Formats: sequence, structure tokens, C-alpha cells
Amino acid sequence: MTKLTHIDKAGKAKMVDVTEKAVTVREAVAAGTIIMEPDTLRLIRENGMKKGDVLGVARVAGVMAAKKVGELIPLCHPLSITSVDITFTPDEGRSSIDIQAVVKVASQTGVEMEALTAVSVAALTIYDMCKAVDREMEISGIMLMEKRGGKSGEYISEGRRR
Amino acid sequence: MTKLTHIDKAGKAKMVDVTEKAVTVREAVAAGTIIMEPDTLRLIRENGMKKGDVLGVARVAGVMAAKKVGELIPLCHPLSITSVDITFTPDEGRSSIDIQAVVKVASQTGVEMEALTAVSVAALTIYDMCKAVDREMEISGIMLMEKRGGKSGEYISEGRRR
Amino acid sequence: MTKLTHIDKAGKAKMVDVTEKAVTVREAVAAGTIIMEPDTLRLIRENGMKKGDVLGVARVAGVMAAKKVGELIPLCHPLSITSVDITFTPDEGRSSIDIQAVVKVASQTGVEMEALTAVSVAALTIYDMCKAVDREMEISGIMLMEKRGGKSGEYISEGRRR
Amino acid sequence: MTKLTHIDKAGKAKMVDVTEKAVTVREAVAAGTIIMEPDTLRLIRENGMKKGDVLGVARVAGVMAAKKVGELIPLCHPLSITSVDITFTPDEGRSSIDIQAVVKVASQTGVEMEALTAVSVAALTIYDMCKAVDREMEISGIMLMEKRGGKSGEYISEGRRR
Amino acid sequence: MTKLTHIDKAGKAKMVDVTEKAVTVREAVAAGTIIMEPDTLRLIRENGMKKGDVLGVARVAGVMAAKKVGELIPLCHPLSITSVDITFTPDEGRSSIDIQAVVKVASQTGVEMEALTAVSVAALTIYDMCKAVDREMEISGIMLMEKRGGKSGEYISEGRRR
Amino acid sequence: MTKLTHIDKAGKAKMVDVTEKAVTVREAVAAGTIIMEPDTLRLIRENGMKKGDVLGVARVAGVMAAKKVGELIPLCHPLSITSVDITFTPDEGRSSIDIQAVVKVASQTGVEMEALTAVSVAALTIYDMCKAVDREMEISGIMLMEKRGGKSGEYISEGRRR
Repeated sequence: MTKLTHIDKAGKAKMVDVTEKAVTVREAVAAGTIIMEPDTLRLIRENGMKKGDVLGVARVAGVMAAKKVGELIPLCHPLSITSVDITFTPDEGRSSIDIQAVVKVASQTGVEMEALTAVSVAALTIYDMCKAVDREMEISGIMLMEKRGGKSGEYISEGRRR
Repeated sequence: MTKLTHIDKAGKAKMVDVTEKAVTVREAVAAGTIIMEPDTLRLIRENGMKKGDVLGVARVAGVMAAKKVGELIPLCHPLSITSVDITFTPDEGRSSIDIQAVVKVASQTGVEMEALTAVSVAALTIYDMCKAVDREMEISGIMLMEKRGGKSGEYISEGRRR
Repeated sequence: MTKLTHIDKAGKAKMVDVTEKAVTVREAVAAGTIIMEPDTLRLIRENGMKKGDVLGVARVAGVMAAKKVGELIPLCHPLSITSVDITFTPDEGRSSIDIQAVVKVASQTGVEMEALTAVSVAALTIYDMCKAVDREMEISGIMLMEKRGGKSGEYISEGRRR
Repeated sequence: MTKLTHIDKAGKAKMVDVTEKAVTVREAVAAGTIIMEPDTLRLIRENGMKKGDVLGVARVAGVMAAKKVGELIPLCHPLSITSVDITFTPDEGRSSIDIQAVVKVASQTGVEMEALTAVSVAALTIYDMCKAVDREMEISGIMLMEKRGGKSGEYISEGRRR
Repeated sequence: MTKLTHIDKAGKAKMVDVTEKAVTVREAVAAGTIIMEPDTLRLIRENGMKKGDVLGVARVAGVMAAKKVGELIPLCHPLSITSVDITFTPDEGRSSIDIQAVVKVASQTGVEMEALTAVSVAALTIYDMCKAVDREMEISGIMLMEKRGGKSGEYISEGRRR
Repeated sequence: MTKLTHIDKAGKAKMVDVTEKAVTVREAVAAGTIIMEPDTLRLIRENGMKKGDVLGVARVAGVMAAKKVGELIPLCHPLSITSVDITFTPDEGRSSIDIQAVVKVASQTGVEMEALTAVSVAALTIYDMCKAVDREMEISGIMLMEKRGGKSGEYISEGRRR
């Protein structure tokens, strides 16, 4: 039967040992969405077209969070990531902003958590900067979309479950 | 017209000035969900009934993340929070785990971001510890549920948007 | 004779004891400059007029650094600062960007170091983002300009020494 | 025309992708100065001759700051630096202390920011420890002096601009 | 029966809620020892008499660690400590260095963990700086010696158990 | 005569230069003990048999501390550790819990400090979670037990000195 790799035989949590794994180029793509009032989206976009600030600050927050994964997620390996790229795509129909993060590294283990964390913290930063005008924003659909490199090879998500 | 409080007149980002606000007791409740394969939920629960480790580690990660909000979210004020409490409720019907965080402080500003971040990082930690058996997990429905204290008084969310 | 407050009678370093000092509103203003090639300044400004990114990222870095002073400067007290505001003023004549940071807190000790650190890290971030086109940039004139609150009252700098 | 490497085609900030770059030995030397009252310099030196504390604490602060660059400068790559060496040279004529930092790494990218940050934080620490006796200190002339390793080869600064 | 305050009724870990507790002045004194070869102690002392470096660096490390307790000890409250003072007492008879830390705060909860952590990290730093000449050093006797302030009043340890 | 490697010829502290050392697999094992009242040990074990929380939280704290060594110990190199494993062994006879940490890395320098810090912070976390019922706990016997890899080869401690 499949086993959770972070739990050893006695059931206690441990960092998975990757000491003997090969250093290879690895990449992960994660996505997520923050849903908001149409007025909130409009405020972000108008400011964005002039100064880009809400999304500019959220982008910086996402990049910096990707570098902090080793201290946020208890059993994650600390990694010297070599690339982070965050994209925001406003969606007027859903009154939301789609967030995508691509993270790369040459390392012994993958960067899924770095990409997922970058998306999450970028979304939280948007929430923080807009919460005075819209408390009902919802962060949703945070998922791993793609993963490359390492022993398990390429993975492409079959899409959102719902 | 409503304005984004983090953007000043020239459009540049700044920390909102709370220097003159009163220190009052403030509380925030946030919620979120991580959806997974039924087998993943079963593995977490079996381990949970014996040792509680996946959820135990995720709870610690969420508490510690609430304390790190000032360094994760660029324009958040650093706060000396006085209470964090995280609850996990497995939902077999939706094959998911609901996460709730309650954060308190006696401070000049609220703790919404601390509660939302605690939920997000707890969910990311569950993802990390189970990703070897289930890459398709999805983190969803991260929202502010309740907020008390401060000038704006009590707020109760009208429920999830979808 | 005047004594260095961080050195005790035996000459060893210690954090100055502020336990019994009153909590009052305190404010500090610091300034500094980064000097660069005219072409570098032009590149920053053109981008700045469109997207504001170099200065936008530097502003976020400065705000976040002000929150990190307690862990950067060994004998500084950790403070829950309540306001940080960073302004950039390009100066075409000197081919430089002037940086000013205003920091506030309600606390037992002042925020000079927070303001000076915000200016320094904002300047370092500008250097980082432009170093591929201009390695000769120079960070200069980092000084405390104003200070208010606390037992020592108001202080206004007599201006730059050189 | 030369382009800022941290700004992509759409003008948004991103971490420069160094995933495919070779790991080579890299070194950077940065310098800076803190100018003070003659009495302040004398106090530091007398203590320095006996216990070395002001400069001893500043040296530790500079070394630790070099290790923190990845979390201070938003778009910097986190690096596992392999050497930091900080030297202080008091200059009685200018009533100042010159600060030099040499940082090394075997990595895919250089350590200019680590050296510049080490100098800056060492200078800020001197300011912090002496500010009770001299608020008018000025941090100046922070520059990259030398750089070796990597594709761009050796760089020696032509000297201070002013 | 006495209960562990960090474990709630369902057995899950949580931060103890101190939101409603009064802000009072609190102080804690912790002690510990690092035992080493006589030659190692001699090397530290000779250097110490000239430059004070091993103990100087260890003192800075201990002070900075006291400020980091909120992010090291999972269920500790983050505190804005107002004083840390670390003393080293070499003991030639036992070939050891005794370490004492005194920490103060005006807060809703005590600073035992800050004092104990300051002692531990100061001892680890001594180990680090001397490990090339003495791998057999032992850190021992880390205890809370005194505690004042708060509802439980004054506590003086009855001395070391062994 | 033997020299302290962290002190250069002028007596100032510096990070030992490991730039030219080979990357090899390295491992360190450290141990330590926390001594407590028999009632405290019983409370931990009863909870442990049901939910494992005190030791579960302490294990997470120890793993996370191993990842933070570069920012806690001033002259330590930051390392991307690849494995941490922490074991607790209650000893009813001594009314204590023995703590062991095994840390691995593929790096230019060893992980003794990571193993020793993991043990120390795990012990401090046990103290924190039990201090409401037992203030007299003592952390003792923190030592390096084994070390492998690197130029100096294998080391096995001759056992505790006392």
C-alpha cells in the first residue's frame, strides 16, 4: 500500500532524505485564483494601468515567499531556487484574478511547494491590500499544474477537480 | 469613491498609519479547505487516529505562520499576537479537510491576515506531506469568516460565494 | 565623559534596558541617495512612468526591511512599527535618486534604525535591479534627518556634513 | 538598447533565471564609510583597543546580513555563501571608519549584493551603537570595488565618483 | 490533576491565550554551562583578553536568539523584549564557561524561553567557534534560575538537580 | 600551536572560507537530555500515547531549527540540508527524555551545528510546553556523538565526560 513519505515506520514526522538523489533541473507551475467584487477588480485594474501597485506588491510578495518555503513548511528542504516568475490574469467574467507561478531550481528535490506558496502569498497580499473595500474576497483553486525534472518525470494536471 | 487604503495619493504603496489608533482586543476567524483523493484522506485519518502527525505538523506550521505575517505580507503591521487556535475537520462526503484558524491580539490593528495565513500555510503543509501519494489536491475557499474589535466592529461573512 | 550606551561597565555589548521607559509616539525621518549613470536613471524613469517597477520593488523592500531591524541590527529592540512611508525623488542634475523614509511607532524606544535601514535596503534594491547595466552606482549620504517623541524630544539634522 | 534584466517584456519584476548557468567560484568586494565626530571615533577606538566591542558587534552583524540577502533584496537569488570577511579601517583624518567586505561563493550567480549588504549593515550597526553620543553620523560611499568569476569575468571599480 | 497548558481538551497543540492578561514588567534569569578541554578554555581566554572575540560573538548570538524565540519555539508568543544581558564566567576548576542570561519585557506573558534560548544559542556559538580544536565539548545544566512578574509572582530555583 | 579557525591573524571573527572544499556527503549525530519531574514525564507520555503532541511539536521545532542554523550561529555557513531525523527516548529511571538528531547534507562543510541546534531547540520546546507544571526541568548533556564525511573523516565520541 502507498505510504506517506513524511511519516516513518514509527509514525513520526521526518524530513525525507534526499542526500543521495541527483542534482537535476526541476520546474513547477502552480495556479490559483482570488475572487472579488467587480468594483474591487476595477480599482485594482485602474491603479494597475497607472502604477501597477497592488499586483506589483503582490508579485514581490510571491517571489519572496517562494524563497521562504524552507522556513514556512516544516518538512520541506531548503532550496536555492534559481528562477521565480509570477503572472496575474484578471478575469472580468468571474470577477477574479488568476495567479500563476513558475519556479525553477537545479537541486536534489522539486519545487512544487515553492510554486504553490508563491501563489498563496501573492493571493493573500492582494487580499491584504484590498480588504478595506472588500472583506468577502475568496482565495480558491490553488493547485499544482505542471512539474518537470527528477526521477518521476513530467506531470501535467488533468485540470481542476470541480 | 472608495479608495484602496494601501495606495496613497500618488499611487505608491505604503503601510497604513495606525500610530494613533487605540489598542483594543481584536479577533479574526478564517476558513479554508483542502480537497483530496479519498485514499489520501483515509491515510491521513488512519495516521491521525494513531499519531496525529500530518494534521499535527500542519497545525504547528499554521501557528508559526500566523507569527510570520509581518514578514510575509509586505504592508502588514508586525503584531505580537496573543492566541492562535487551528482546527481540522475531515469531511468524507467532499473528501476534504476543512481548516479553521482563530487569532487574537490586543493591538492597534486587526488579525485577518494572520488567520488567513495560518489557514493557507496549514493547507500547504498538508499538501507537502501528502504530495507523494496525491498531486491533484486543491486548496480552496480561503475566506475571512468573522472579525471582532476595532472601530469597524463585528463582521460575520455571509458565507462562501460559490 | 560621554559613554556608549550599548557598552556596559565591563566593556561588553548589551541591549540597552528600556523596560521602564514610557510608551510614547515616536517618529524618525532618514534620507540617502543613490548616484548612477544618466542612462540608468533614464531607464528607471521610463519604466517608472509606465509600470513603476524598479522603484515599486525598492519601496516594498524598504518597508519590509524596516520590519526586520530587530533581526538585522544586533542590539536593537524588536518593535511593532505602525507606519512606514518611503519616497523616491529623482534628481537629474546629480543623476541620482534621493530616498526618504518616515517611520512611526508607539513604543518605549525610537525608530531611527528602522528609518535608516529602510533607506539603505531600498537603495541596495535599486542597485540590485540596475547592476546589469551600471556597476558603478554609489549609495551615499545615509543620515538621520528628523526624530520626534521620547525623552530627548525633537531633533532636526543640521544638514549633510559634506 | 540596454535593458534592465529584472524587468521582463511586459514591464513586470521577476527573478532573473540562472537555472542553466554554470556553478563557478565567484567573489565580490564592496566598500563604504561611516563619518562621525572625532570624539565618537575616539570612543570606538578606545573601546576597540580594550574590548573591540563596537566593531566586533558590527562585524558579526555584517556577516549575518550577508547570509540574509535572499530575504532582504526581493529579486536576489538565495545563495549558500562560503566566505565573508569584513575589515574596518579607522581614518582619523576624515574622522571616519572605512568598511570593506569580501564575500565568496561557488554558485550560479554572483555575490555583489552580499558584499554591499554586509557593508551597509555593518555601518548601520556602528550607527546604532554610537547614536546616543552622535546622531549626525553619515554612511557614505557604498560601492562595489571588485568582482570575479562568472561569464562577465573580472571587474575593478575605477574608484569613487566624487 | 495538573494539565499541560499547551494541549487543549482534544489533545491538540495550541498557543495559550494571553489576550486578557495584564501587561506587567517581567524578568527571567537562565543559566547553563559549556564544558571543554583546558586547552580550549585557555585559547578562548587568551583571545578574550586580547580581542574578546569568541565570547563577544557568542554574546551577540545569544542576544539575537532571544529576539527570535517567537519563530523558534512553535507555541511561544512573539514578544518585544526590552532588555537582554548575557554574562560569561570562565571556571578553570571545571574547565568550563558558565553562561547567564537576564531578559526583561513589559508584556502579557513571561520571558523564560527567551532567557533559556539566549543561553543555549550562546553555548552553541562557543561550540561552533571552538569545534575545530575540541569536538568533545558538552553543553549542560541549562535551567531557569529566577522569574519575576505576572500573576505567579517570583520564582527562585532551588538549584541544580544533580 | 592549535588555533581557533574562526579567529584570523588579527584576532577578528570571520566565516571560515570553504569555497575551495569539495562537495561530499556529510552526516552528524548529536544527543542531549531533558530531565524533569516523574509527573511531567508521565503527562508527556500519556498525551504521547494518545496524540503525541508534546514530542510531536518538539520534533517539528527541532527539524525547523536545523534549517535555521545559518541565521542563528553567526559564523556558520548557510547549508541546504537534505535530511533531519529526530528521536525521543523517554528514560523512566532518570526521569528524562533523551533526544537524538541525525542531519545529512551534500556540501562543502559539515552539519554538527545543525544536529546540535536541532537537539537544543527540541529540548527548549519540551521545556516550553511543560513549564506550567514543572519549572525545574534541566537541559543537559548536549554533545556531538558522531560525524562522517569531509576531509577529517569519521568521528565517534568517547562518551559523555561526566
